[in-house]
Amino acid sequence: MTPLFAEAVSVAGRADRLRSHLDHRGAPRSMIISAASNRRWLTGFTGSAGRVAVTPERTVLVTDGRYGDQARQQADAAGAHDLEVLVGTTLAEQRSLLISVVGAGAVAAEAAVMSHADWLSLGSELDLVAIDGAVESLRRTKDDAEIARIAAAANIASQALSEVGAMMVPGVTERDLRDELEYRMRRLGADGPSYETIVASGPEHAALPHARPTHRSFVEGDLIVIDVGALLDGYHSDMTRTYVVGDASPAQLEWFALVKASQAAGLAAVRPGASASDIDAACRSVFNDAGVGDLFVHGTGHGVGLDIHEDPFIGRAGRGELGVGDVVTVEPGLYRVGSGGIRIEDLVEVIDGGHRNFTALPKDDPCPPSPLTI
Amino acid sequence: MTPLFAEAVSVAGRADRLRSHLDHRGAPRSMIISAASNRRWLTGFTGSAGRVAVTPERTVLVTDGRYGDQARQQADAAGAHDLEVLVGTTLAEQRSLLISVVGAGAVAAEAAVMSHADWLSLGSELDLVAIDGAVESLRRTKDDAEIARIAAAANIASQALSEVGAMMVPGVTERDLRDELEYRMRRLGADGPSYETIVASGPEHAALPHARPTHRSFVEGDLIVIDVGALLDGYHSDMTRTYVVGDASPAQLEWFALVKASQAAGLAAVRPGASASDIDAACRSVFNDAGVGDLFVHGTGHGVGLDIHEDPFIGRAGRGELGVGDVVTVEPGLYRVGSGGIRIEDLVEVIDGGHRNFTALPKDDPCPPSPLTI
Repeated sequence: MTPLFAEAVSVAGRADRLRSHLDHRGAPRSMIISAASNRRWLTGFTGSAGRVAVTPERTVLVTDGRYGDQARQQADAAGAHDLEVLVGTTLAEQRSLLISVVGAGAVAAEAAVMSHADWLSLGSELDLVAIDGAVESLRRTKDDAEIARIAAAANIASQALSEVGAMMVPGVTERDLRDELEYRMRRLGADGPSYETIVASGPEHAALPHARPTHRSFVEGDLIVIDVGALLDGYHSDMTRTYVVGDASPAQLEWFALVKASQAAGLAAVRPGASASDIDAACRSVFNDAGVGDLFVHGTGHGVGLDIHEDPFIGRAGRGELGVGDVVTVEPGLYRVGSGGIRIEDLVEVIDGGHRNFTALPKDDPCPPSPLTI
Repeated sequence: MTPLFAEAVSVAGRADRLRSHLDHRGAPRSMIISAASNRRWLTGFTGSAGRVAVTPERTVLVTDGRYGDQARQQADAAGAHDLEVLVGTTLAEQRSLLISVVGAGAVAAEAAVMSHADWLSLGSELDLVAIDGAVESLRRTKDDAEIARIAAAANIASQALSEVGAMMVPGVTERDLRDELEYRMRRLGADGPSYETIVASGPEHAALPHARPTHRSFVEGDLIVIDVGALLDGYHSDMTRTYVVGDASPAQLEWFALVKASQAAGLAAVRPGASASDIDAACRSVFNDAGVGDLFVHGTGHGVGLDIHEDPFIGRAGRGELGVGDVVTVEPGLYRVGSGGIRIEDLVEVIDGGHRNFTALPKDDPCPPSPLTI
């Protein structure tokens, strides 16, 4: 097969948007960016090491000898024609290069990302000012090229999961299903899974919201929680479905209906201007009314993009409002050791007047899915 | 299949070893551990969030609501019977729990791991002292249970790579080969790849030491650099082999012989008491003598364990000596855009008098491998 996206996502103009953001915020006019996803968003460079310095005049990537050629190629492909790539062989050389680019005066840096040790090291020569969330506040709003990748990634995950429904039978293990699911995502064009795929089954294991797949074999009556996403050209997707092996019990159907109602309530609240805490409250109120609020032990959702967890975060302590171009999950669940767990999660884009759901796989009942082509 | 290792790696006694280390180093007697691999090494807990506080009297894991049950189960399975697991619903609650456990007085923390923002937040209530590398200095020396996992992971990678030799022919893409290779590792028992598998082919792509697999199809005469490891029960493996599609050119054979000689020279230097920089120099001298030293653009090796890159690091600036129980890579390479690249990498354990090589796959010539069963 050929690449699903022949052209790289354009990063042209993004460094200027960061400059405007810093001005608007009254922050220093230069910034050092350390976070990998922020680095990629600004430059197109996908390597594992490097820092970006954005000054009023220059945009510079400082990286190591493994990545010089790759960084230049990727920046050109992404339209970052002004980017200068500087290579330092040692960490000390890279530090010196960075300091010489930034020069004197106050410089913003990501205090929540940079280690304390690095902060002290650079801070001995630079006047560092803690500025967090600057690039994150820009990249939470996705452009068309980014939306296309996230939508395609979501479709790959839905389709792959639909194709392994026949494996949700006694005797198959959690790992068997995970292996097949991830392989199918790859063959559908994914660069890999977005995160460690969760396949958690039965009364004990499905009760752990973030369990890792084990050699446990499915048995009749199991709940199976499957949380899976595809990574595509740097962008993530995220979805969860819960199925029952064989016939669902009345108690399972009752929980399923509650989670379905909670998730629907959360989705209905997703629109421009909605507060993150309101969406969370919409999900929780369904559980609270049924007296099971204490069984929902995690946040309601999060932004998805170059990171699998990014702004905006939707939970009790969620701050701020959703805006057009945000891409978020809504994923309530109920968990109890001895019973298992149920979670339903969709990935949606905030659009004028509401939202668009990227997750095509049905979620009406806990019967294992049939293959669909999306 | 059943799990390759039915029993968890025992962490019994490790918190006491950290206490002794802190005493010996004259560090504060309490420490906060943030790094995920250090957390796992001390507690057996594999979740993505949480901090460990080790005080003279207590060992405490503070984590969030997703992980309470899982952490207790994993700690029990790993023999961490003294571990207390405390759950805080919010980050603020987790911070308060951590502060109350540690109490007054100086406390060590990982300055190279903890973000500057977290350092300031905890430091407003605690007397933090930067202590880096404490747990790392203990966990670089592997015990028998850890060695067994690393050896098994290395065998899985070797076997899987041997099984895909028939795919190293014109028309197959880098991603085709990667997908099959990772799937086979999984089916051989791996929990996944150790890192993003590298399959880099041809004059441009193979010249990038850390390239990601693309849709490029192999053509006659390509060099293919394959850098792959298996993850098994938390432990990594790491190997690289380079093959030629069809017949190797004289220039390719010349480079191959140089890299092979360089790698052999590095391996021959691996023994207890060898300095990290001596092993690096042994590899580089072969290239320097041939006038191609500038084409070796990365470090010579690194430790492997719960992290894919950990102490000890083997490079120009490598410090300290190897000791029995260290597990390290030796991985010289040559790269030139327009020609491609060649890297050969083995994973070895330092033992009395020398080393033991975990990497069973032959490396004598650049012909694609035949299936072997290890």
